[in-house]
Amino acid sequence: LALLDLEDAGGDRFWAPTPGGDGPPRLFGGGVAAQALAAACRTVPEERPPHSLHGYFIRPGRPGVPLELVVERTRDGRSFTTRHVTAIQDSKAIFNLTASFHGAEPGTDWQEAVPELPPLPGDEEDRAAIGPAGLMEIFRAVWRSSPFELRPVRPGPSLVPHPCWVRLAEPIGPDPALQACALTFVSDMGVVVSARAPQDRGRRAPMASIDHAVWFHRPFDVAEWHLFSVDPVSNYGARGLARASLHSSDGRLVASIAQEVLMRP
Amino acid sequence: LALLDLEDAGGDRFWAPTPGGDGPPRLFGGGVAAQALAAACRTVPEERPPHSLHGYFIRPGRPGVPLELVVERTRDGRSFTTRHVTAIQDSKAIFNLTASFHGAEPGTDWQEAVPELPPLPGDEEDRAAIGPAGLMEIFRAVWRSSPFELRPVRPGPSLVPHPCWVRLAEPIGPDPALQACALTFVSDMGVVVSARAPQDRGRRAPMASIDHAVWFHRPFDVAEWHLFSVDPVSNYGARGLARASLHSSDGRLVASIAQEVLMRP
Repeated sequence: LALLDLEDAGGDRFWAPTPGGDGPPRLFGGGVAAQALAAACRTVPEERPPHSLHGYFIRPGRPGVPLELVVERTRDGRSFTTRHVTAIQDSKAIFNLTASFHGAEPGTDWQEAVPELPPLPGDEEDRAAIGPAGLMEIFRAVWRSSPFELRPVRPGPSLVPHPCWVRLAEPIGPDPALQACALTFVSDMGVVVSARAPQDRGRRAPMASIDHAVWFHRPFDVAEWHLFSVDPVSNYGARGLARASLHSSDGRLVASIAQEVLMRP
Repeated sequence: LALLDLEDAGGDRFWAPTPGGDGPPRLFGGGVAAQALAAACRTVPEERPPHSLHGYFIRPGRPGVPLELVVERTRDGRSFTTRHVTAIQDSKAIFNLTASFHGAEPGTDWQEAVPELPPLPGDEEDRAAIGPAGLMEIFRAVWRSSPFELRPVRPGPSLVPHPCWVRLAEPIGPDPALQACALTFVSDMGVVVSARAPQDRGRRAPMASIDHAVWFHRPFDVAEWHLFSVDPVSNYGARGLARASLHSSDGRLVASIAQEVLMRP
């Protein structure tokens, strides 16, 4: 929540807190995306929560450098609101995002076939269940410093964390906009590794998120367990596309995610 | 090609041709997206073609009204270029788009399992094969006024055109940027109808594209036949998400598409 505590600088500009320089060398992309979405939400009425966002990671974000979020009120329509946000460090855009907002309306409730839902994690397990080896050490560090709990579905050492059960460690209440920001944070976690072709998943190689899209389909509570599944779609020309989904423990599809990743050989 | 013949107004602003007011009451979204991408391409070196775009349809586009495209040069990086484009009619944004550009790099060539490829259409068939009834009349009109040929894989009357084979009726040469603009045009065709839950596909009800994302994975020639497949992911709260893909006739995944649609009951 501290991450989303933006300081209003007037004129639809906000200052976002960034971690100090003693942590990872880059800002976590999901954190910047969540902050940009939070800035957009500050300019939209509460009864119209975000239903989707599309963003690009333009430059690496640096810890310890002030992060400014500039919101453009693209449109306030009868049913939809559109906002464009630019995240800036040292006068340079590091991330941009367009988000769309829509109130509740009736409609058909249908979703594609639910994946097989593994049993929910038991209370006795802890984050150490992720496994000790390989690339996962990096992700363990990220997850451990994050407000989310992670329980990979496949036990033991694994180079990729997905599929896994995730939940926010502390409840944050029912506000759909805040819930969407929290889900945006977790939606970027470990997707880069999972975007690799199966035969390349063990490689330690430079990887970076290029873009990020999230569609929030149904109401949810990130403090409940959700199954986070990621599947690669294509790897070619040093880029890879991954699709991800978050299902509630009773199988409702609450969000879909797409991310393209730079993955050099 | 006439659609993509933009007039340079200086300062990274362009005027795009729009059809006259005697056709459909709204501009075709794929056409506006293709024009916005073409404007972005005019500001990027030829050796760095577009690899992805994310856009939002903000207001309905009106035929017969001048369309201005304003390009923001977000970043010219060592490996990637980012552009943001706003499409404007009467001083109001009707569409925005962020596109990313990347030159060829080596990397793993892998893709998810290829769908079963139906036989290529024979030369003796023509566009009338789409079938005479239902909603398809609307789409027949759109397709007939478009530069693309369409051959649905399932013969006879059908309310949705997908899956289908598509190709541009005339070759346009090898320029990857022009190819990407042409693919963007077709990537929006008929997706709205195919985003409906299976049980709702016969409904005549208000529908409109909300957003649109395209990832160009591999080199392609839109003048060759490509299999255009669209599958609904979720319908809820009057919105539906669809995912689509374009495969070459030898099964290479050339593009992935995602689109959310407003679908009132």
